[in-house]
Amino acid sequence: MRCSVLRTAGELEVQERAVPRPGHREVLVRISAVGTCGSDVHYFRHGRIGHFVVRDPLVLGHEPSGRIVAVGTGVDTTRIGQRVSLEPGVPCRRCRYCHTGAYNLCPDITFFATPPVDGAFAEYVAIADDFAHPVPDHVSDDAAALLEPLSVAIWAHRRAGTGLGSRVLVAGAGPIGLLVAQVAAVQGATEVLVIDPDPDRRALAGAFGATAALDPAVDDPRDPDVDMDVDVFVDCSGAAPAVLGGLAAVRPGGVAVLVGMGADEMTLPVSALQSREITLTGTFRYANTWPAAVALAPSVDLDRLVTGHVDLDHVGDALSPDPAQVKVMVRP
Amino acid sequence: MRCSVLRTAGELEVQERAVPRPGHREVLVRISAVGTCGSDVHYFRHGRIGHFVVRDPLVLGHEPSGRIVAVGTGVDTTRIGQRVSLEPGVPCRRCRYCHTGAYNLCPDITFFATPPVDGAFAEYVAIADDFAHPVPDHVSDDAAALLEPLSVAIWAHRRAGTGLGSRVLVAGAGPIGLLVAQVAAVQGATEVLVIDPDPDRRALAGAFGATAALDPAVDDPRDPDVDMDVDVFVDCSGAAPAVLGGLAAVRPGGVAVLVGMGADEMTLPVSALQSREITLTGTFRYANTWPAAVALAPSVDLDRLVTGHVDLDHVGDALSPDPAQVKVMVRP
Amino acid sequence: MRCSVLRTAGELEVQERAVPRPGHREVLVRISAVGTCGSDVHYFRHGRIGHFVVRDPLVLGHEPSGRIVAVGTGVDTTRIGQRVSLEPGVPCRRCRYCHTGAYNLCPDITFFATPPVDGAFAEYVAIADDFAHPVPDHVSDDAAALLEPLSVAIWAHRRAGTGLGSRVLVAGAGPIGLLVAQVAAVQGATEVLVIDPDPDRRALAGAFGATAALDPAVDDPRDPDVDMDVDVFVDCSGAAPAVLGGLAAVRPGGVAVLVGMGADEMTLPVSALQSREITLTGTFRYANTWPAAVALAPSVDLDRLVTGHVDLDHVGDALSPDPAQVKVMVRP
Amino acid sequence: MRCSVLRTAGELEVQERAVPRPGHREVLVRISAVGTCGSDVHYFRHGRIGHFVVRDPLVLGHEPSGRIVAVGTGVDTTRIGQRVSLEPGVPCRRCRYCHTGAYNLCPDITFFATPPVDGAFAEYVAIADDFAHPVPDHVSDDAAALLEPLSVAIWAHRRAGTGLGSRVLVAGAGPIGLLVAQVAAVQGATEVLVIDPDPDRRALAGAFGATAALDPAVDDPRDPDVDMDVDVFVDCSGAAPAVLGGLAAVRPGGVAVLVGMGADEMTLPVSALQSREITLTGTFRYANTWPAAVALAPSVDLDRLVTGHVDLDHVGDALSPDPAQVKVMVRP
Repeated sequence: MRCSVLRTAGELEVQERAVPRPGHREVLVRISAVGTCGSDVHYFRHGRIGHFVVRDPLVLGHEPSGRIVAVGTGVDTTRIGQRVSLEPGVPCRRCRYCHTGAYNLCPDITFFATPPVDGAFAEYVAIADDFAHPVPDHVSDDAAALLEPLSVAIWAHRRAGTGLGSRVLVAGAGPIGLLVAQVAAVQGATEVLVIDPDPDRRALAGAFGATAALDPAVDDPRDPDVDMDVDVFVDCSGAAPAVLGGLAAVRPGGVAVLVGMGADEMTLPVSALQSREITLTGTFRYANTWPAAVALAPSVDLDRLVTGHVDLDHVGDALSPDPAQVKVMVRP
Repeated sequence: MRCSVLRTAGELEVQERAVPRPGHREVLVRISAVGTCGSDVHYFRHGRIGHFVVRDPLVLGHEPSGRIVAVGTGVDTTRIGQRVSLEPGVPCRRCRYCHTGAYNLCPDITFFATPPVDGAFAEYVAIADDFAHPVPDHVSDDAAALLEPLSVAIWAHRRAGTGLGSRVLVAGAGPIGLLVAQVAAVQGATEVLVIDPDPDRRALAGAFGATAALDPAVDDPRDPDVDMDVDVFVDCSGAAPAVLGGLAAVRPGGVAVLVGMGADEMTLPVSALQSREITLTGTFRYANTWPAAVALAPSVDLDRLVTGHVDLDHVGDALSPDPAQVKVMVRP
Repeated sequence: MRCSVLRTAGELEVQERAVPRPGHREVLVRISAVGTCGSDVHYFRHGRIGHFVVRDPLVLGHEPSGRIVAVGTGVDTTRIGQRVSLEPGVPCRRCRYCHTGAYNLCPDITFFATPPVDGAFAEYVAIADDFAHPVPDHVSDDAAALLEPLSVAIWAHRRAGTGLGSRVLVAGAGPIGLLVAQVAAVQGATEVLVIDPDPDRRALAGAFGATAALDPAVDDPRDPDVDMDVDVFVDCSGAAPAVLGGLAAVRPGGVAVLVGMGADEMTLPVSALQSREITLTGTFRYANTWPAAVALAPSVDLDRLVTGHVDLDHVGDALSPDPAQVKVMVRP
Repeated sequence: MRCSVLRTAGELEVQERAVPRPGHREVLVRISAVGTCGSDVHYFRHGRIGHFVVRDPLVLGHEPSGRIVAVGTGVDTTRIGQRVSLEPGVPCRRCRYCHTGAYNLCPDITFFATPPVDGAFAEYVAIADDFAHPVPDHVSDDAAALLEPLSVAIWAHRRAGTGLGSRVLVAGAGPIGLLVAQVAAVQGATEVLVIDPDPDRRALAGAFGATAALDPAVDDPRDPDVDMDVDVFVDCSGAAPAVLGGLAAVRPGGVAVLVGMGADEMTLPVSALQSREITLTGTFRYANTWPAAVALAPSVDLDRLVTGHVDLDHVGDALSPDPAQVKVMVRP
């Protein structure tokens, strides 16, 4: 099979490799579509993310959909032919985190496109049968792939406790921020503010559930005259000013969730966190989101996020920043 | 002022009474609309509900909207003229339940139309300022009144823990059941089943968020071949067969909430509750629902519930059962 | 190896069987002690519990401790020699319940001594490595076995939400009730009432954390003059009068948890559940309790529960009711 | 009556003032004992805490106990003579925070010894009847006063979610840190680590529930070789190195609660918060803690915290730092 391999920072090549054989309780999936994500871009450009370093050639891509073409032992053969969305991290199933349902925190998880585990910019992958989630016909291949970023958004709201009548502020109107806004709206948030300095991105927000799109240069939440008083702030920018603005916007007793990756350290107003009892946390991937994501797919405009497609020979193009693009899909 | 008074079971008369004077931190409200509810019907017919007995003449009506026309001491006069939805139970503010936010359980709450506290089938009522919730202009008088049954629905889902991706079964497609269905949909439930033996009521369900309307004679959840496997069951019927069906429909670890009033006692499958760890509870009124209800009003089709209007002289008509009616409003 | 086999109701015999071989990620454990439990007694006497029927010869016993004597593939050999407490149900690890940490609800769990799965009244058992929990030296073999009923008690309180300052009523002062009382005390409940008609059992309660031991003939919670007003009720009796008493004792907004197995159906005061918003649920085994149980063992007087020991040849004696016994241990 | 008044930073004087008259639903309390707290010390030394500035003469003291000597209208006269512990902040009862039980966040709360509200270094105070909590005879006057810092500790653990089997790290072994340790132990935490650079304070920790007292110079949680892996970290020091150490000690998915007041800003490892999904929050006073605190008083060694007593003429001595003192009580 063909796959796109990152040899070192900035250097991708298409290689021929053996099609993987599905092991016990695994399925073999012919990949239909794979989303490209900020972490793929980051590995491509820098060859590392934090302490995860690309030492050996690595297949990127962790937002895949496809069709089951073969099954390993212990898997019902009726699954062959099923269209599936792949949850790209398979945990150990035996540690305290797996036992308690927090399997995203499993220290032994094998996660696509995280060194040394290969990802899905390839014609085929093998994966545990319970992490290949069936999708109905009305969900497109691209949408099935984008259940992964949708899961990021669902997880952010689970950690935030967003619900009926919540007032939500989202910083950053990239693909994740837009999905976070839309998932807020879908679950009954009655105010969904999206803040982003880029007017083009702000223009998109309304189509993704935002009740208002704000320019931080105009509506700075840190301005003492602005009282946004939101229940939930979700940062999808990774930018310190956005985080500080969001913390200023949260009402006493509210929650701030950091999704966007930014600097390792940030200087935060801890005394304000204390006197207003704000809860600050972050998200690391997701757990148990696919069932909801599959059920939710028709209510969320996933296909609208897609602004381009490439084949395996042009993954490098998809991983090069282009402000005109929201989400580029790889079709192996 | 004029008000409709229940003298004894079956006997209503319109009386002239003095307009109440708003006390400290109270507002005086000119009533615009009042919903009629099953408990009003029950008092009208039987003169009692359980141990609440109508001994002295009582004004019924506990779903009111109106406009503030005067304020007592301690209330900003700028509130005069404000359109408001009234939360009809004012708690003591000092007991353990009030302190902890569970004020619906306050033993000293004064609740409209519950003996000996008069209700709102009257031209004016006085109420604590913080229980007269401002509503925006786009919410009609009828809709503002119906934030009360909407609150019942919101509260049922809070107790149930309904959320994104929940699968919900609602028994009973009366006004409360329809709102419970709609609130489920608004907060991201991806399957909303409504079950009711009456085909006319089932026909309404689709317009109120139901993804399917079921006839218990056809789709009996107790049938071993039917596996509804819902996360949440909300009974709005008060009927034992519906409750037993709902309990059979709930997945292990799921929740059943009893909203409809029925018999005092019911024979329940406790060993099934145990072996499937089902959580069973009920609702008693609501607490802290109005802010969400006001914000939610535009997303919920409250006006569509209204099938008739009467004035104070015809309250008795509105309290007489008529299967063709869903919700009749009193306009004093 | 020798094991005690239930051939049919009332008929136990000691058989010689092959020592099991530990599979991949399994350990082989030489059994030290096994508690006898009400369900063992029930199978012995009736040959069934509900729809679980003993059709083929079955080894009973699901409260075992022991020492690892061999390991399968994938298990570190340093575990050989480790003293362990066995969690007797190994779930499938792949269903929605396993994924979310509610593995006690896994439909494919294999649970010791539940037909057709053999239990631990045997010299050796093989079990998944992560369900053989290491215990420190200061925990006796009997206590290590009794982490199983301790887990039942911990789980009951997790489901109840017992915590600092809780007022708790426990019905039934058998082994489980006594542990439920003690675990309540250990986690900061400031009132722990134990109610039991048997004076000998009541006499034990004080040593297990109860702040008062009540005789239902004297202090009937259903008596309108008695207002126990507890936050949490845990039934460990399975008796309908005890459950009804407990429900009457729970304060508005409180929780009732049914642990004791009794009749399949019970007539319950649903309107009282509603008007007081009581939450009623049951427990089915436990999930994720062993780490806490191991850590807690020194604070809970497990050895004091043990009133007798038998060997494999006398299991039948241990399974015959004897009111003088609290907990009889099998020592293979 | 006599009271101790802070005229300006560093300047206390005893004044004669009129005894307050209890208003409607208020009680008049003859003060028995008042704890001195870090915030009193801070006002005494600096004349301000953050944006709370002592502009007019202020009575300090917010940890009072006493005896009811008179009642206002609406209060049962049988309360006269009752020994009480005073919860020193009375909220507005009408805002969203009061309605939802989060009254510590009420923007209109009147809190003792917070400008311009006078505190309790006085012979008498008047307070709302429901914030004067009866205490039983076996709780001493000092202990009744110290239910206030005990409430701080209870609240910290409520925010942290500490429970049975929790592993807890507490930074700072001052009065609050010691109570946080003890409350952890009382509610079933099975590991309670206290870390403090001061050997004298560490020596106290063992008597207050700590299972180990650590010197950060020896056991630095930031040392990569130290893996404390605690579920809960409570900072009672306000010191940045302690907070950073605590964050390093928390396991993935754990909680860090900041109780100690320190710098307004702190540079925090946000990417570690994200990748380990740590929840960080702070506490601001407390809500609904007194019932538990009263019930818990016999289980917590409050009197042992008291190392000295002064009268109203020597409040200044009590507010001057003395490392030999843990808690000095004012006896008016």
